Amino acid sequence: MNKINIGIVGYGNLGRGAEIAIKHNPDMNLVGVFTRRQPESVKTAGASVFSLDNIYKYKDKTDVLILCGGSATDLPQMTPELAKDFHVVDSFDNHSEIPQHFEYTDRSAKQGEKVAIISIGWDPGLFSLNRTMAQAILPQGDSYTFWGKGISQGHSDAVRRVNGVADARQYTIPNDEAIQRIRNGESPNLSAGDRHTRVCYVVLKDGANPKEVEREIVTMPSYFKDYKTTVHFITQKELDTEHSGLPHGGFVIHSGVTGENNNQIVEYSLQLGSNPEFTASVLVAYARAAYRLGVKKDFGCKTIFDIPVGLISPYDDEFLRANNL
Amino acid sequence: MNKINIGIVGYGNLGRGAEIAIKHNPDMNLVGVFTRRQPESVKTAGASVFSLDNIYKYKDKTDVLILCGGSATDLPQMTPELAKDFHVVDSFDNHSEIPQHFEYTDRSAKQGEKVAIISIGWDPGLFSLNRTMAQAILPQGDSYTFWGKGISQGHSDAVRRVNGVADARQYTIPNDEAIQRIRNGESPNLSAGDRHTRVCYVVLKDGANPKEVEREIVTMPSYFKDYKTTVHFITQKELDTEHSGLPHGGFVIHSGVTGENNNQIVEYSLQLGSNPEFTASVLVAYARAAYRLGVKKDFGCKTIFDIPVGLISPYDDEFLRANNL
Repeated sequence: MNKINIGIVGYGNLGRGAEIAIKHNPDMNLVGVFTRRQPESVKTAGASVFSLDNIYKYKDKTDVLILCGGSATDLPQMTPELAKDFHVVDSFDNHSEIPQHFEYTDRSAKQGEKVAIISIGWDPGLFSLNRTMAQAILPQGDSYTFWGKGISQGHSDAVRRVNGVADARQYTIPNDEAIQRIRNGESPNLSAGDRHTRVCYVVLKDGANPKEVEREIVTMPSYFKDYKTTVHFITQKELDTEHSGLPHGGFVIHSGVTGENNNQIVEYSLQLGSNPEFTASVLVAYARAAYRLGVKKDFGCKTIFDIPVGLISPYDDEFLRANNL
Repeated sequence: MNKINIGIVGYGNLGRGAEIAIKHNPDMNLVGVFTRRQPESVKTAGASVFSLDNIYKYKDKTDVLILCGGSATDLPQMTPELAKDFHVVDSFDNHSEIPQHFEYTDRSAKQGEKVAIISIGWDPGLFSLNRTMAQAILPQGDSYTFWGKGISQGHSDAVRRVNGVADARQYTIPNDEAIQRIRNGESPNLSAGDRHTRVCYVVLKDGANPKEVEREIVTMPSYFKDYKTTVHFITQKELDTEHSGLPHGGFVIHSGVTGENNNQIVEYSLQLGSNPEFTASVLVAYARAAYRLGVKKDFGCKTIFDIPVGLISPYDDEFLRANNL
């Protein structure tokens, strides 16, 4: 079997997760990790490390690049640039910028006769797919998305920026009562604050005033003000030993009606021991689709809505029809 | 807007559900119901009724046929035959016969330059899709399917064939304890009998011996012998008033592992007030995909693995990228 040759661009939590995921896919071969750092300074789980500056030397040996940079500054540049010369998959998650990111990437990919699949992961990604499917099947209905229980990196960063905070982790927790109402067929009008609570574990700097820190957190606009927020003060050691994982997850619940008031509930849920490892596993599966679309010369930028599920499976169509239907 | 013109072939529970579902899709127009019965004898919720013998007269007015016949004898003939002249969608669910059904239908559809989408519904269908996605994303893992709580038509029929039984309904009930073990990250080895229990509501004929009827049910091979089965004797009136609905549902749970033993649980579940109305709603959404593939001249037989989700949505790609990712 000809293996699919994969390159990983960027080696943070997501890149590390991609390296692990590729090992579980016998039809794939990892060419190496490409980094902007000094290659010698990057410790992988075994993969070769190359300077990103030299990536074009690996053009002929690499079928698909998995882009593991951030959505704020890395991917808006990197995805359209690399899509001129490689099939690429990214996890761009800046929702309001997706149409523009698509347009730039589509132009590059078509020009270079390459395939780019953007905004892959679980939200955007698998959650987007499930919302769209449920809405198409049950147009008379409402979709609800809940996140958690899990670590929100953005909210943890916001707490760490508060005066007097040495370190912090923030958990987003879905409201069980709201979930139960929707599972029971209700279609309540719920804000994000009605659907979630927030719990912060905070390590104070010496001499910081816990009352003031707590007040500053719970009143922070956008991040905490509209949520029921609880703040726990703990030691750095407790934070490191009990809150070092990156669990996450969530639910997409669609509550629809057919005929004479027959409730129909469709629910998709994830309970993730490691958010970056799961997201990376989704990227790796969609790298297979990028490769196969490339073989078919179906070039340009795609999203999860454009990809038949058969293309992400290691099995061929005939096997899937005989065994998975 | 040019509406998609749909014909319904067959008017049992599924055909009735399709008629209802089409009303919720403003981009569709129902041409009518085609039946093998006397058209005058079929009472619809408003749709015109035509003899199936005359269906070819409606060829130019009809974009897609939704085939609502049974998998035992109707669809194996009907789908390949009609796919020569119409785009079609069916819910063929005889798992072991799917490869042959695909082959016959593919030959007809390609010959007639039509699109046929087979085995659409929730299992096979949405459950197949979710099993395949989860397995592709987490290859190191196991998928479990649970059915219910819901009415099994096949098991209800089997009970009705027992000597002394006047009428009956059988509920398949998933085993909560087994579900909980998988949600907790275990990968137990479970037979269908470990995953489900069966509950029968039975109306006896005059003079029938309840002990004998119960023994014959619970020892019936394939259907009940390997399950914990409970039999309740009730009156016809109780059966008609309390067990007349057709609820169903189920769960596909995939329990996988990434990295250093991080559990990743993906779960898809359905809780359906009406099984035939939901299945029909899935067929109607995929009729939209059949029409769009026809416009692209992507002819032949397809399964749910071949269809990008964007094609079943009433919204176009640009809208989906801006709003649903």
